[in-house]
Amino acid sequence: MSYQNLEKHFRRISHFEELGAIVSWDEAVNMPPQAGPGRADSLASLTRLVHDLSCDPEVGEWVQAAQEEDNLNDWQRANVGEISKRYTRATALPADLVEATAQACSLSEQAWRRYRAESDFESFAPFLKTVVERKRTCAQALAETLELSPYDALMDNFESGMTTAIVDRALAPLREFLPSYIDEVIERQKSEVVVHPQGPFLVPQQQELAQRMMVASGLDMERARIDVSHHPFCGGVPSDVRITTHYSEDQFLPGLMGVLHESGHGKYEQGLPEAYRGQPVGTALGMTVHEGQSLLQEMQVSRGRDFITFLASQLGSCFPEQVLRQPEAYEVENLVRLQTRVKRGFIRIDADEVTYPAHILVRYDLERDLVSGKLDVMDLPEAWDQKMQQYLGLSTRGNDRDGCLQDVHWPIGAFGYFPMYTLGAMVAAQLYSVAQDSLSDLPAQVRAGDLSKLNAWLKQRVWSKGRSLSFDELMRQASGEALNPAFFVRHLRARYG
Amino acid sequence: MSYQNLEKHFRRISHFEELGAIVSWDEAVNMPPQAGPGRADSLASLTRLVHDLSCDPEVGEWVQAAQEEDNLNDWQRANVGEISKRYTRATALPADLVEATAQACSLSEQAWRRYRAESDFESFAPFLKTVVERKRTCAQALAETLELSPYDALMDNFESGMTTAIVDRALAPLREFLPSYIDEVIERQKSEVVVHPQGPFLVPQQQELAQRMMVASGLDMERARIDVSHHPFCGGVPSDVRITTHYSEDQFLPGLMGVLHESGHGKYEQGLPEAYRGQPVGTALGMTVHEGQSLLQEMQVSRGRDFITFLASQLGSCFPEQVLRQPEAYEVENLVRLQTRVKRGFIRIDADEVTYPAHILVRYDLERDLVSGKLDVMDLPEAWDQKMQQYLGLSTRGNDRDGCLQDVHWPIGAFGYFPMYTLGAMVAAQLYSVAQDSLSDLPAQVRAGDLSKLNAWLKQRVWSKGRSLSFDELMRQASGEALNPAFFVRHLRARYG
Repeated sequence: MSYQNLEKHFRRISHFEELGAIVSWDEAVNMPPQAGPGRADSLASLTRLVHDLSCDPEVGEWVQAAQEEDNLNDWQRANVGEISKRYTRATALPADLVEATAQACSLSEQAWRRYRAESDFESFAPFLKTVVERKRTCAQALAETLELSPYDALMDNFESGMTTAIVDRALAPLREFLPSYIDEVIERQKSEVVVHPQGPFLVPQQQELAQRMMVASGLDMERARIDVSHHPFCGGVPSDVRITTHYSEDQFLPGLMGVLHESGHGKYEQGLPEAYRGQPVGTALGMTVHEGQSLLQEMQVSRGRDFITFLASQLGSCFPEQVLRQPEAYEVENLVRLQTRVKRGFIRIDADEVTYPAHILVRYDLERDLVSGKLDVMDLPEAWDQKMQQYLGLSTRGNDRDGCLQDVHWPIGAFGYFPMYTLGAMVAAQLYSVAQDSLSDLPAQVRAGDLSKLNAWLKQRVWSKGRSLSFDELMRQASGEALNPAFFVRHLRARYG
Repeated sequence: MSYQNLEKHFRRISHFEELGAIVSWDEAVNMPPQAGPGRADSLASLTRLVHDLSCDPEVGEWVQAAQEEDNLNDWQRANVGEISKRYTRATALPADLVEATAQACSLSEQAWRRYRAESDFESFAPFLKTVVERKRTCAQALAETLELSPYDALMDNFESGMTTAIVDRALAPLREFLPSYIDEVIERQKSEVVVHPQGPFLVPQQQELAQRMMVASGLDMERARIDVSHHPFCGGVPSDVRITTHYSEDQFLPGLMGVLHESGHGKYEQGLPEAYRGQPVGTALGMTVHEGQSLLQEMQVSRGRDFITFLASQLGSCFPEQVLRQPEAYEVENLVRLQTRVKRGFIRIDADEVTYPAHILVRYDLERDLVSGKLDVMDLPEAWDQKMQQYLGLSTRGNDRDGCLQDVHWPIGAFGYFPMYTLGAMVAAQLYSVAQDSLSDLPAQVRAGDLSKLNAWLKQRVWSKGRSLSFDELMRQASGEALNPAFFVRHLRARYG
């Protein structure tokens, strides 16, 4: 009976969370310029409602009683465990702080959309400062309850049980390996002849290609749509996935890769266990596994020669004039070289998979210092510039738009998220390696633009598990061993030499 | 203190209502096909939340205490009055019934979008039957509390204090006057030569024209946007107005008139009193006044020769090839004839202002019988056909798509709404007649596409009043007398002879 009460209560909470997901998507995609403050107020009230419902003392009582019910199945027991963790986390923070933080983040996100366009860090800084202060207060309160460091308490929100120790251990081989390896690869690629496809690529043409590639990826478009926003993301809910991308008429590959990346996220959401929809155990395990799915689609599959063979077969009908004008640019081998080109650049989301982890090291180092208070927001542009010089040999001085203003994460208060990207790349390499061993026809299927067997494999081993397993158990059951960064290094070696 | 509590409580309720408005707009404009059931569940939870908050016993206590506070200004006193009415209405209905009704309406709206396209009344009927039964139960419960007839209790939700007696009195002159007058006008127009602009009119061209006309109407596009849906509507919130229309490539005028109609609604929302945003007294008075604003824009202004002169000046740049090919179709006099053409037709939203009230009489008669139980849902197609023959001399037998399936109102449970359209046409005629007397330069301004003085007049006398005045007081203060159907009849005589 207590368990039934929990299910009913959390189904109701999920309804409000789902409405919030649609409205947040709308804010990034549709909202007219002057509607921001009113929207921030409304979303803050929703966040507070969800927080209040999650903190309801009855939840604590029901959890205790449900833990003694002996007729629950494994999923239901796991659900009680998830609810218990969530209740503990929610009750650690006073409601006023939660609401004030949500409002600061919403206003800061709106300010970021404006000031990033103008590369105006100074005007944006007060918004970010408020966000950092509020998140720091949250992190400290959470840390005491969860007996973690403040930064680990923030990471724990994105992937349960993730700690600085785990991240440092996973990143260690890259810190060793990467700087000289980037040099090597760039040196090796110097002799390659790469032909860059010449635009313009009209947005409707790119939309047509995006639509075909989403269908090929196996995203169910009866439960998804695609739109345009400043920063690509995957929002919405499992039955209504909202993918966004950003098109440039000069190049079609970056926008397309955004679409494929977000399609990976969307497939995970669509593959979550239907029977536990709306229950905490039925949601995605965490951001590392989520990035694992998007990077498996984007990096492992879509930049491989097999998928590029399929992609090349579609380009003639999407960009007929461009292909006629410059056929050599659209040949498979040239596209492979384009899609595996390694280059030092300012923008994380445009980075190749070799330099990407260096961008993460910049952010990981800086955000730990922002959260601890060791780094002041006003000093961020300079600190960013130094770290970029250290890891990538590039200076962002006087170019904050392409420096510390480039990402939406800090403006929305998502500290502790960045390391998940690189751990996700490791998950992707590990899962895809094992999938290739299990599915003998996979290369031929990928060349035909048919990922259905791969998707079925992933759905069975990852997506349909929701949160019924811990990260470690999931990786062991799905791939035969715990997260092992060697798969990622091996993948880079195989692709880049 | 009690008053402050009420303001805070209702501001919070308005946040949830505003999120619901955006999500409902999204449902009609964006939602992918398979997302319907999940969305219906989420919106039902939101409706129940708003209902529970509105019924909170503390509201009743605060209202009683606030009515004795002697330091409230007129607006605050009016706010307490509105809250008290709303509380009475909300507490008349059990929460389970409110939620079940909302869910039935949401599913029925989704079914209507599917089955209207297929003209399949039989498949749609079970959905409508459930809606009618639930609304009837609601109407009976409300009727007892409010001491009204069930149908009047439903109308009261759309315009406080509206009764069958008032509606019958307003419609009486039309019942007398209209049937023979429609014959007369159609006979008179037989000799007119009307040239129909030949398409295709591409959607991007129509979007450009719509954008210009919305700006000319005075709608603030920094707080509004326009999209496409099956049925045009104006949704969203005062700081974020969401207009939709429906474009056909064969004709540009119907889509454009939809845009102008909804812009009239949008301007009213944007002109509501900012200081009482989120308070019941700060919302629009009711659907009659709302339709008064949309019809003032669409019928009084936009179909008049002055506005058509402005419109004609814009068409050459929006439809250059079409105008070159057929210049005579785009001359002012021809456009005036097109825009005032009277014709019996099946579709209410495409009807001219002379036959429109006949469509309302069909619906008014039928929906009263649906609510009373005198008419069974299964018999609706035949009853519709009979009424159409009686009032408009047209048969809809075997064509339910253009018959009783044409409107969204009944599928979403909006019984008691239709009469407001024709009472709104009367409000529009009365207000515009008085505005023309007050603003001597108005014709020249309208010819220049500048409605700013007219909008200022309407804002001062109507929009900024919110619900601080009763319908009767508003009409008297704004126009010098109570609603008088003679203004509408005089307007028809002046325009159609």
